[in-house]
Amino acid sequence: MTITITAFEKSPDRGQGLARDMRVRWALEEVGQPYVVRLVSFRAMREPAHLALQPFGQIPTYEEGDLALFESGAIVFHIAERHAGLLPDDPNARARAITWMFAAIGTVEPPILERQTAMFAEGDRNWTAERLPLIDDRIRTRLSELSTRLGDAEWLDGEFSAGDLAMVHVLLRLRPSGMLAEYPNLAAYLERAEERPAYKRAYDAQAAVFKASTG
Amino acid sequence: MTITITAFEKSPDRGQGLARDMRVRWALEEVGQPYVVRLVSFRAMREPAHLALQPFGQIPTYEEGDLALFESGAIVFHIAERHAGLLPDDPNARARAITWMFAAIGTVEPPILERQTAMFAEGDRNWTAERLPLIDDRIRTRLSELSTRLGDAEWLDGEFSAGDLAMVHVLLRLRPSGMLAEYPNLAAYLERAEERPAYKRAYDAQAAVFKASTG
Repeated sequence: MTITITAFEKSPDRGQGLARDMRVRWALEEVGQPYVVRLVSFRAMREPAHLALQPFGQIPTYEEGDLALFESGAIVFHIAERHAGLLPDDPNARARAITWMFAAIGTVEPPILERQTAMFAEGDRNWTAERLPLIDDRIRTRLSELSTRLGDAEWLDGEFSAGDLAMVHVLLRLRPSGMLAEYPNLAAYLERAEERPAYKRAYDAQAAVFKASTG
Repeated sequence: MTITITAFEKSPDRGQGLARDMRVRWALEEVGQPYVVRLVSFRAMREPAHLALQPFGQIPTYEEGDLALFESGAIVFHIAERHAGLLPDDPNARARAITWMFAAIGTVEPPILERQTAMFAEGDRNWTAERLPLIDDRIRTRLSELSTRLGDAEWLDGEFSAGDLAMVHVLLRLRPSGMLAEYPNLAAYLERAEERPAYKRAYDAQAAVFKASTG
């Protein structure tokens, strides 16, 4: 059955790999599943046809036969459950990999999203310059804890898993801030992930959409 | 095997059910699994023994034999996978229930956490009074979308699931704001959840810790 995902017709980050369809593309590349992309405009995202698939008007969505899913974490998990390569076979190791998926989205990402909201939704407010260092301190608390846990390991828990995929993509949004460089083992962790052939294929596919839209 | 979870020794919300061990207690009550609670002080949460279990120094954690997990979403999912009652049997319905877990934590909760951070971590800042309405607008966007999707259904997708459990607990944090009352179907959804015997047992067990600590 064909897998169809949705992605932004016009990339808000100019194809730099930060939109959340990247997580789904990367997961599909890791497990070797082909997929089709349907591009959606910002206007179409708020229309009934898309809201029926994604009640919050976001991308990505995932369609396969009569199954329709949304929320990148859930889609990555679905792919990881159905195909080998993103979750360990051992039940305890599998549960720990899933834990890292939830930790990425539930604990590490919120202050990073808050930084993004401050810069984009409140960038013109007179308090934002003074607030950003407070947000960055909250982000550093999480980065420091994560750096301590990762130590000199290659991945968060044994082999590369859907937990690493989620965590890496959450952290990549911080790269322009320069904060990641303060934690050399986290910076190296991201570089290892970006060297994965599946990551590169997903990144290039997302970037190609941006290039086509501006060519 | 005994299931042991951790919870706050001193409840930050005075036992009102908002700490995240509530999600795990509720899930365990829904599936009828007994559990033991180990209370942790704020100081002990930052010590090596707890950080080995929970790298971000939070509660709850979950221990069962040689399995140790953290992150309430991951723990609820683990319980739901192992015991009947929180995920449908049909594979597509199961994937959709998991989608709602991720939607609760990844899409609905972030602006609610931002509100909490504004009130507690930045409550003394001169911008907070002016910022709160902006945050509340972002929360209302999510509530409105969720309200539209729920419509007059009892639960988010068929029978009560781990997706409802996560969403309800995320939304309950908003109750003091009064915003939920603007969406009567969401308010009724929360009330239905709170009427569940498993919810009540979990709530009472968490409240009992607070009462004992102040008795």
